[in-house]
Amino acid sequence: MEDEFMDKPHLVDRTGTRYPLTDPRWRGDDGGPLAVSELPGLRPDQVDAGERSLWRYAAALPVPAEHRVSLGEGWTPLLPLDWAGARVLVKPEWFNPTSSFKDRGVSVMVSHLRRLGATRILEDSSGNGGSSVAAYAAAAGIGAKIIVPEATSAAKILMSQAFGAEIELVAGTRDEVGAEAMRQSATIPYASHNWHPFFLQGVKTLGFEIWEQLGFEAPDNVVVVAGAGSQVLGLDLAFTELLAAGSIQRRPRIFVGQPAEWATIVEGVASTGSANAATGSASGRRTATVAEGASIANPVRLPEAVDAVRRSGGGAYAVPEAEILAAVRKICARGLYAEPTSAVAVAALDHFLTTEEIAHDQRTVLVLSGTGLKSAEKMATILGNPDE
Amino acid sequence: MEDEFMDKPHLVDRTGTRYPLTDPRWRGDDGGPLAVSELPGLRPDQVDAGERSLWRYAAALPVPAEHRVSLGEGWTPLLPLDWAGARVLVKPEWFNPTSSFKDRGVSVMVSHLRRLGATRILEDSSGNGGSSVAAYAAAAGIGAKIIVPEATSAAKILMSQAFGAEIELVAGTRDEVGAEAMRQSATIPYASHNWHPFFLQGVKTLGFEIWEQLGFEAPDNVVVVAGAGSQVLGLDLAFTELLAAGSIQRRPRIFVGQPAEWATIVEGVASTGSANAATGSASGRRTATVAEGASIANPVRLPEAVDAVRRSGGGAYAVPEAEILAAVRKICARGLYAEPTSAVAVAALDHFLTTEEIAHDQRTVLVLSGTGLKSAEKMATILGNPDE
Repeated sequence: MEDEFMDKPHLVDRTGTRYPLTDPRWRGDDGGPLAVSELPGLRPDQVDAGERSLWRYAAALPVPAEHRVSLGEGWTPLLPLDWAGARVLVKPEWFNPTSSFKDRGVSVMVSHLRRLGATRILEDSSGNGGSSVAAYAAAAGIGAKIIVPEATSAAKILMSQAFGAEIELVAGTRDEVGAEAMRQSATIPYASHNWHPFFLQGVKTLGFEIWEQLGFEAPDNVVVVAGAGSQVLGLDLAFTELLAAGSIQRRPRIFVGQPAEWATIVEGVASTGSANAATGSASGRRTATVAEGASIANPVRLPEAVDAVRRSGGGAYAVPEAEILAAVRKICARGLYAEPTSAVAVAALDHFLTTEEIAHDQRTVLVLSGTGLKSAEKMATILGNPDE
Repeated sequence: MEDEFMDKPHLVDRTGTRYPLTDPRWRGDDGGPLAVSELPGLRPDQVDAGERSLWRYAAALPVPAEHRVSLGEGWTPLLPLDWAGARVLVKPEWFNPTSSFKDRGVSVMVSHLRRLGATRILEDSSGNGGSSVAAYAAAAGIGAKIIVPEATSAAKILMSQAFGAEIELVAGTRDEVGAEAMRQSATIPYASHNWHPFFLQGVKTLGFEIWEQLGFEAPDNVVVVAGAGSQVLGLDLAFTELLAAGSIQRRPRIFVGQPAEWATIVEGVASTGSANAATGSASGRRTATVAEGASIANPVRLPEAVDAVRRSGGGAYAVPEAEILAAVRKICARGLYAEPTSAVAVAALDHFLTTEEIAHDQRTVLVLSGTGLKSAEKMATILGNPDE
């Protein structure tokens, strides 16, 4: 059975079992997450420079461009910023249809699901993921059902409702909401930004863009915030493919910031054992953080995210809450209205500059994953208390 | 004195009096608004295609690119949309640094003011204009003072405060706030999105982009919402310059929607007299509209906006409030989270399709000027009452 997939793109689980690319499954027979097999990557001449969206990289995506569901996602700016003398380039990801980087993954994932015949899709997220899935379902002309914890504020689900999604409130913790989504995935295709392997295929275009916007060169470092780690995994995919294609000569280092009490990847990178030792069992109490989008207790692909950071020679930092608050104020003061979750990356950048793991004369990309406009209450609290 | 400006760009007031381009004034000796003299426009080979921002059109801007203050504004997508069989292309302007089209004008205006030596700038706007000026002042490393009516909600000025702007609350009507800003302009350079002639120079890039993104061709129609009419005026500048340069062969028609009780341009276009008869004296009570950004009682450049619509052969429609509310729901259902003000353009498009002033097989661009994320309360009211 495996031979038929050997030479063409397929899905693969952690045990190495392969499945056709068009298999509607969202996880392997082992219960773990799936990946798309390594694709051949991209050369500069394969970029469709006339296309103003991430579909300019269709040659390296597992969905043909003619099936795309697009709202103009991707091709965000790369802004040079003098950051206390360091050579920083900011990638503000709110220049996207629903104002977060999630639109990259969701565009590719929804394109794939619609191509497979989905007329309705399911997601569990009250944040950027849910809004994005709802928007692309609307654009695709299919239905969306978004499952959220019953405590979710009306404001947080307003955007998804505006796009016409059905909202289901579920009692219990975030994990219990996820479990309910998995149950319902038996009858509705599960467009999970955490689980679906095509989501990461869209996020990898973040890495392609950085490469293209630097004149088809790799940066020295990329700094991101991580909750489930999808930006880490997307960048790792991009740089792995670009190396394989000979389009870059060395792998950029990936540096990660996480809220201190949700530092699953940080713990994994720091542990002396194999990456597989990091299985989301990170212990201790977990208190709420303003970086809500990064407060993920059990990342689906934790070992893979840890591996990606290690393989790159980068690092990971558990950011104390006070540093996150200060980072929000600091990045806003530059005219960049980043959401508190994004500011974790800003604090991580400052940390690694201080430790000199990132040198001032290196080319460092700082990814700001979403807009502060969706976090009005948190922004008001943070900005109204400058002495906090 | 006039001769020295004859052959190079200069400022000109309504009486024809000329002033140097670098004169720090924001209005003419006649008390009326200023314009930048007609510039030579743009040919396709003058576009700096490697620049991902509106500064790709620097060849047609009155500020040299090396003086630019940029946060990645412009180069928003142009999305094909099947609109009940009509050939519509949507220009979503929230793919901008502060999530509205205002960033186009403010980037060029602030670049000019900083070049003239401003260390602090003044604006009066509690909406998109204020946030944008605050962001660009922060990016430019200069101070900003934003004057707003004292009734302004804390939520509306949060973004400007985040960027470090000083906020001054002033008692009285919107016009009284404007009068206070004019008084203070004696001591602080007035970066007014309503008055400053360089603001429109930035907004005109909206027209250049439409032209470039259509393969350097003119659309048949562009539909916009108008309050003060800066999109109308910016598009008129762009198309006038492109015609002069021989880069387009015919002038696209500009169609305008305005909230019914704030229909100053509509009244001017409908009047049989000269455009100068439209002087903002539009009478009658004015009740609040959800399209708050378009509720301007006395547009600074009303005769010019009326002329622009007439010259284009377009039209203007006073949109009843119920049609605005329906239009918000209709555009959101397509995955596009436009602010209520933008939805006035959606309603106008539907009107002109119904009257057949816009034909279904024409190429029509629909500009959506800002994001619903800044209007959370209004969006909740509109979307929570589907039967309204």
